[in-house]
Amino acid sequence: MQQKDVVRVGLMGLGTVGSGVVRLVEDHRDDLEKQTGQRIEITKVLVQDASKERSVQLQELLTDDPAQILENDEIDVVVEVMGGIDLTREYILRALERGKDVITANKDLIALHGGEILSVAAEKQCDVFYEASVAGGIPILRALVEGFSSDRITKMVGIVNGTTNYILTEMEREGALFEEALSQAQDLGYAEADPTSDVDGLDAARKMAILATLGFHIDMPLSGVAVKGIADVTQEDVSFAHQLGYRIKLVGIAQRDNGKVEVSVQPVLLPLSHPLSSVDGVFNAVTVYGEAVGETMFYGPGAGAMPTATAVVSDLVTVVKNRRLGVNGRGTVAPYQECNLKSPGEIRSKHFLRLHVLDEAGVLAKLTMIFANENVSLEKVLQLPYRGNGAEIILITHLASRHQLERIQGKASSLEAVQSIQSYYRVEGGSE
Amino acid sequence: MQQKDVVRVGLMGLGTVGSGVVRLVEDHRDDLEKQTGQRIEITKVLVQDASKERSVQLQELLTDDPAQILENDEIDVVVEVMGGIDLTREYILRALERGKDVITANKDLIALHGGEILSVAAEKQCDVFYEASVAGGIPILRALVEGFSSDRITKMVGIVNGTTNYILTEMEREGALFEEALSQAQDLGYAEADPTSDVDGLDAARKMAILATLGFHIDMPLSGVAVKGIADVTQEDVSFAHQLGYRIKLVGIAQRDNGKVEVSVQPVLLPLSHPLSSVDGVFNAVTVYGEAVGETMFYGPGAGAMPTATAVVSDLVTVVKNRRLGVNGRGTVAPYQECNLKSPGEIRSKHFLRLHVLDEAGVLAKLTMIFANENVSLEKVLQLPYRGNGAEIILITHLASRHQLERIQGKASSLEAVQSIQSYYRVEGGSE
Repeated sequence: MQQKDVVRVGLMGLGTVGSGVVRLVEDHRDDLEKQTGQRIEITKVLVQDASKERSVQLQELLTDDPAQILENDEIDVVVEVMGGIDLTREYILRALERGKDVITANKDLIALHGGEILSVAAEKQCDVFYEASVAGGIPILRALVEGFSSDRITKMVGIVNGTTNYILTEMEREGALFEEALSQAQDLGYAEADPTSDVDGLDAARKMAILATLGFHIDMPLSGVAVKGIADVTQEDVSFAHQLGYRIKLVGIAQRDNGKVEVSVQPVLLPLSHPLSSVDGVFNAVTVYGEAVGETMFYGPGAGAMPTATAVVSDLVTVVKNRRLGVNGRGTVAPYQECNLKSPGEIRSKHFLRLHVLDEAGVLAKLTMIFANENVSLEKVLQLPYRGNGAEIILITHLASRHQLERIQGKASSLEAVQSIQSYYRVEGGSE
Repeated sequence: MQQKDVVRVGLMGLGTVGSGVVRLVEDHRDDLEKQTGQRIEITKVLVQDASKERSVQLQELLTDDPAQILENDEIDVVVEVMGGIDLTREYILRALERGKDVITANKDLIALHGGEILSVAAEKQCDVFYEASVAGGIPILRALVEGFSSDRITKMVGIVNGTTNYILTEMEREGALFEEALSQAQDLGYAEADPTSDVDGLDAARKMAILATLGFHIDMPLSGVAVKGIADVTQEDVSFAHQLGYRIKLVGIAQRDNGKVEVSVQPVLLPLSHPLSSVDGVFNAVTVYGEAVGETMFYGPGAGAMPTATAVVSDLVTVVKNRRLGVNGRGTVAPYQECNLKSPGEIRSKHFLRLHVLDEAGVLAKLTMIFANENVSLEKVLQLPYRGNGAEIILITHLASRHQLERIQGKASSLEAVQSIQSYYRVEGGSE
């Protein structure tokens, strides 16, 4: 058993989360020591520009040379909160090769290179933890790996991107247009200057790949996640959804049926009774369904300096406890299930379709006949007048495959009376 | 490091949860083996009557002699799901003395004797886990101990008793009387024939003592939990609360301010915007507030054979992994904070008061003057006619101490125009 009084941490990155980590380690040092039996010291901090003035009083620890951390045998644990992919991967692999335990908040890196990093860690008997990479302050990875280790998880549905959830919440609450809500999110610091990764669903896709990997014990490739963002969500969609008793949320879905898996991110309609539909603003939440446990939900702040720092430093507590016991890198369970992805024809859900049609006799009959011919039954139909000579038609189906819906959309577009298919959404939850 | 191919489990109790544990261990044996590297075998099952026919095919493992488990050196882990206190405490201590790890779902036992049991376990280097004892299938204890190890928890508010939550949900949704809802809960198996422990809040109090112990790192005595049950909650209260935008829920509150702690269980008014207010039926949920993480919530089934069994068997997975690494009993953090309980004068909340008064000029003025003289300001006041010559008055205060409210209730009762104080509740959440 390894015994040591001080555990030395090399921190890579001193942005929002990095500063939060420093603050938490300093403010809670005595508590952390009581829990771990060790004193945690941040020994070196990698920054891009070591001469820049900082809010945190760490000036003498700063370095712009990664070797000062990676090749420093004094340093036991590397905490990576600098972001980035290729260079960061190289740094983390170098740290592991030198026997350092690693904690990272980097979802991009873990979603792309998690398998490689974890296998090097296992070989070198080092811990790699990344609780902060998904849903910020919510300890959801621990819940999957430990809390539900005895169960078979069948489905995870998550609001795992605060930026888009803020935008959609504002669109529903304030009647804002997408562009207005986005620019407001940027003003408040909830969205980046370049919001592409959030708005297009890529950030959420990375988190869902991580959840699927851990929840289903598979090697879920990021390329297997079907992604659609919220840039096309209109105020009309939000408001019609609301009238029909739904909210539109950007939701990640990871589902396993009969050994086959689907993982996707898209704006979906959630019934108001769904536990995720009341998750507003920048909050995150993940519902987890297990064969034995049934429905559970985990809710909390998905981002922010201090919430994310709690996840990072709680991982650090685990690493430090493991060091005391000399068991780092021995607890990880490698994926043991095969990753068979469903084909689009096997992905079944309810669907929402909104169309503009000419208000002629028989249009609705022709339209619904297309659904009937595809053997897709309808749960809700709403027809409203639209600009004098037209009609707005909204249809919500019972369970049907994405393929069936594509064929239906094709046939519907070719009807003369159909002017346009305004929008299409997956519908999640509620009875089938 | 200990290496072993089979881990042998002695199961004490084969009721609802015990049968669930057997089913989960049998159905998921291969998964559990992949995760732990060990095969889990249930070797002996303690029952009261070994000759009784069972649904589970375990007949040859049954025994009514506890020594067959406790003094059996073949058995590595004891899983206690038989309930009870004094005898069960003795069994568990005997198991620990023989070096067996222990998993229990027994909240009564842990709330009363957890300190003693954990200290014997630490001495004998055995694990004792009890995730199933609070909030059934929700991995809330892991979240407190590991997920938030880096943070300082300031408050936990929980719906931790499904029976009373079912009763209150029915009273609100269906307009049922307390007695009707209780008898319905009994018919559905959600309430016991003798529902005292649930209805009087004792079951919830035990769970809150466990949450406070782990969340605040204190030795929280069960006797320090202030308890009030739901037997006096009337249909009028539920309906007036609803009109004012609140729901009545039996809620456990554990709060720490300036190093002083309060732990209580009582029916409270929760604003509809509170994350717990939409937790209906037999579901449980716990909100956890941390200085750094802010607000989080954990939601799921609070009882039932399979959900509770997932918590027990997930604990078993941890024990088996620890055995493989030879670190059982080394990870527990004993309480390191002093337990200073607040005096009633230090417990501050909002309050709801409902009175019947004579409809005379100046009654409301006299009544509100009593609040003003105690320096308690009012957030909401509602006056309605009551039976011709009377009035119903409802007052919701801003933050005030329980002491202040008691003095106010005393003075109000002595007003000639006040016929009765119909009900009093704590109000939780919302702005202050």
